[in-house]
Amino acid sequence: MPNDRYAAISGQQFIGGQRRATGEAALLSLRADDGQPTGYRFHQATAAETSAAAEAAAAAFAPYSQLSAEQRANFLDAIAEELDALDEAFFAFAMQETALPPARLSGERARTSGQMRLFATLLRRGDVEGVRIDCALPQRSPLPRPDLRQYRTALGPVAVFGASNFPLAFSTAGGDTAAALAAGCPVVFKAHSGHMITAELSAQAIERARKRTGMPAGVFNMIFGNRVGADLVQHPAIQAVGFTGSLQGGRALFDLATRRPHPIPVFAEMSSINPVVILPQALARRGQHIAQELVSSFTLGCGQFCTKPGVIVALRGAAFDRLAETMSALVNAAEPQPMLNTGTLEHYSHGLAALDAHPGMRRLAGRSETPPHRVTAQLYQAEEALLLQADPLLQQEVFGPASILVAVNSEAQLHAALSALQGQLTATLLADDGDLDMAAGLTTLLARKAGRVLFNGYPTGVEVCDAMVHGGPYPATSDARGTSVGTMAIERFLRPVCLQNTPAALLPPPLQDANPLNLLRLVNGVFTRDPLVSPAPN
Amino acid sequence: MPNDRYAAISGQQFIGGQRRATGEAALLSLRADDGQPTGYRFHQATAAETSAAAEAAAAAFAPYSQLSAEQRANFLDAIAEELDALDEAFFAFAMQETALPPARLSGERARTSGQMRLFATLLRRGDVEGVRIDCALPQRSPLPRPDLRQYRTALGPVAVFGASNFPLAFSTAGGDTAAALAAGCPVVFKAHSGHMITAELSAQAIERARKRTGMPAGVFNMIFGNRVGADLVQHPAIQAVGFTGSLQGGRALFDLATRRPHPIPVFAEMSSINPVVILPQALARRGQHIAQELVSSFTLGCGQFCTKPGVIVALRGAAFDRLAETMSALVNAAEPQPMLNTGTLEHYSHGLAALDAHPGMRRLAGRSETPPHRVTAQLYQAEEALLLQADPLLQQEVFGPASILVAVNSEAQLHAALSALQGQLTATLLADDGDLDMAAGLTTLLARKAGRVLFNGYPTGVEVCDAMVHGGPYPATSDARGTSVGTMAIERFLRPVCLQNTPAALLPPPLQDANPLNLLRLVNGVFTRDPLVSPAPN
Repeated sequence: MPNDRYAAISGQQFIGGQRRATGEAALLSLRADDGQPTGYRFHQATAAETSAAAEAAAAAFAPYSQLSAEQRANFLDAIAEELDALDEAFFAFAMQETALPPARLSGERARTSGQMRLFATLLRRGDVEGVRIDCALPQRSPLPRPDLRQYRTALGPVAVFGASNFPLAFSTAGGDTAAALAAGCPVVFKAHSGHMITAELSAQAIERARKRTGMPAGVFNMIFGNRVGADLVQHPAIQAVGFTGSLQGGRALFDLATRRPHPIPVFAEMSSINPVVILPQALARRGQHIAQELVSSFTLGCGQFCTKPGVIVALRGAAFDRLAETMSALVNAAEPQPMLNTGTLEHYSHGLAALDAHPGMRRLAGRSETPPHRVTAQLYQAEEALLLQADPLLQQEVFGPASILVAVNSEAQLHAALSALQGQLTATLLADDGDLDMAAGLTTLLARKAGRVLFNGYPTGVEVCDAMVHGGPYPATSDARGTSVGTMAIERFLRPVCLQNTPAALLPPPLQDANPLNLLRLVNGVFTRDPLVSPAPN
Repeated sequence: MPNDRYAAISGQQFIGGQRRATGEAALLSLRADDGQPTGYRFHQATAAETSAAAEAAAAAFAPYSQLSAEQRANFLDAIAEELDALDEAFFAFAMQETALPPARLSGERARTSGQMRLFATLLRRGDVEGVRIDCALPQRSPLPRPDLRQYRTALGPVAVFGASNFPLAFSTAGGDTAAALAAGCPVVFKAHSGHMITAELSAQAIERARKRTGMPAGVFNMIFGNRVGADLVQHPAIQAVGFTGSLQGGRALFDLATRRPHPIPVFAEMSSINPVVILPQALARRGQHIAQELVSSFTLGCGQFCTKPGVIVALRGAAFDRLAETMSALVNAAEPQPMLNTGTLEHYSHGLAALDAHPGMRRLAGRSETPPHRVTAQLYQAEEALLLQADPLLQQEVFGPASILVAVNSEAQLHAALSALQGQLTATLLADDGDLDMAAGLTTLLARKAGRVLFNGYPTGVEVCDAMVHGGPYPATSDARGTSVGTMAIERFLRPVCLQNTPAALLPPPLQDANPLNLLRLVNGVFTRDPLVSPAPN
């Protein structure tokens, strides 16, 4: 039965600061551990409610986007505080819904509130405005130059679809929501069906922060339900989409969004096999250690990371054989684990079945029998031809604790194999000092394939900071120019505006001569925090 | 007959540093003045040639994108020199093909070479790399932070479609080409059928510069022909599209590009009616002067500018009536002018016919009879309901010397009318001191609608500088986050890459500890040109 302290889990939509539900309470919250109901039910959003949520966001857009960066930063800080105040009962629900262990969930909460605070810092630092000023040149010949001042402003209401595997950090109050809110864009969040209680309690935390800081109703909205995403991305009020999930799901939303009468950008983080390349000296000198690290990396969190190493490539030889042997032993010893939800579990089974059925693929290790609602790690080896010929099976992410070894015959074949890869979130080189010459050429090649290239590490940790890129060429994402982790994520939701010959009285603070916000501005081709010497016209 | 000095106008494709032609020489260069052939013929690119051009660009991508910013800057400077060296015969051809007057063409040449030099400056200034570094924090608890270094790199080969109305500045060697080449992206240019000789001679200038500076063959390619655009944007090697032209043309390319198996971004600058709002005091105090300026602005260059003021809005009353009267007299006195080509001329006629046929539209002024191959200025007045109800006819650009007056009844109606507008490249307020209160609210509203908001000026001059935004929400462009004029245009063709824990020996110069290029870098959250104190891991 429901916990009394959370009797307020109403399972209704969050629309314009109100809770509403006209649809049936047909959506069951399920336990990840055994697929049984938790006892909570959620209301399917109706088409009218989906529209109302988009319209509430549209109504909030004008007032919210005009707030100062400092006011938005205070809102984000307040959300962080509310998230940090979530208690043990919240974690108990999240654990029930996702089977993620308590330490992982509390670490993820810290990351989620930290993310909100980082965007608040970014807003106060002032690099969001991206101010560029070219002063008037009234005497220039043949034509005078007008006064031109550029800043960046919010794109409009954003629809966000969160991930199952980060029920906090990439869900309701997660990275895309934080980036959109920081940019000045109201959000309509589609609650993930895999963790609806977690979503509801997170949304309540955002709403408490909204009220405390006096933000407009409708700056954050959330709807529950199946098949509401299509209506949402097609609603004329929505101006951009953030998505984390499968290639199929992301591409479907991309197709809908780009076929609208007024197309909108979609930032979908989708599918990556995250190749790891072990160079010869590293393999020879520390192959056994690498074997342990690799198995730890691809089975960590039951392999449920977008950056899980899905393909491991090295040169053929005795060292490769020893690597495969050690990894096989470790994989065979791996314990069965629960996955995030029944859907994820089924996808993993289907993924393995497709690998098993491929004639160029050989299963090296992994138990074939598992208890109900549990999976185990699996290790495969693929013929190198699959990489060289860009076989679709090998390019496809298998979400879960499976990875594929590939031995290539030569450095030239390694180049050819990596050149045939599709776009990736990450690519990793494990290299010792003696490998550096080979690594140099591969770095350049992999930087053309991936958003992040790592040395002597494993890609599953994604730091939230200024320099992070969690993005990459298709199908890793739908737009290689964006990142969904790190401060640069905000750029996806901003657009530039230029004001020409604007009277001083009408200039927003970032553009004023005196530079009252002390921003770093590009003035007449030079970056400076100095005030302007020549006054604005008028 | 062809001019002997340009006997080398072969009319063949430019592919990978070679001239090739297997298709028929079926494309006729025509004089804008009378639609008759100039005597030069161009070869239709075959599907194989279109592919070959894309593949030549792909082959050039790896070597070209790895050049230093300084090397690319030298290439752009060399192109500028070659453009500046084009002689009178070149201008004679361009004038024949476009009917643009000599002064305009020589001004446009200065803009085109100036644009190349500005991007060279940008490359040397170093803001292209966008470096962000977060140093390793090995002692951080609970998890250490790795060393993370982000820079921006070229997206890949770009297909560019130029505009008819800027045969130099927005064509072969124009803004999109300059931005793409500066970013490190090879270009495949689709020559505009309206000025093929101009295109050929411009491409020859680029090729001379390429050879002089030792750039890889295939960094620039050009194909002639009808119906080659679809093949080009669907070629797997092409990674982005730049386009300037009609809504219909831009949207067709956008649809093809987003439906590819691997979708690519399209930056199409398409359709804008560029509203001009005259506020009451400005109208009362200088209505007669504004009338003259407006007619000059919308008939300038025969109205063939993307930023031509197409709709002029003011409050109803005696001052409005006087404005309409003065503008009508000026329009009735306007001389017939030639247009860029027969296609443009036909589009203008169709546009006027649609206006004439609409019951809410009244023709105020403009001759109905014109000599062959000539058009005259036209002035209309629309019922305010057309604006308020977002009538598609009024939202549609009529390319040519026509504009539409609209009188509204109140400030509230003015807000409602402007709120109903679609996305625009520009929006203009003509305001006196007494209008500033009203202007404040309108500025905020118009900044949500347009890429550039002007005060007391006319939008047809588009300055090439850091602060310019020549972009805006759909249908002005297909992506409001970009600009096609000004230095920020380069950002469309860059994507971020993060290198994690990279050995110092493998770091590219922008990311090296010593900051050898003296770039402004965001290091641990602070913008600085200082070298790093802590060394890179190794």
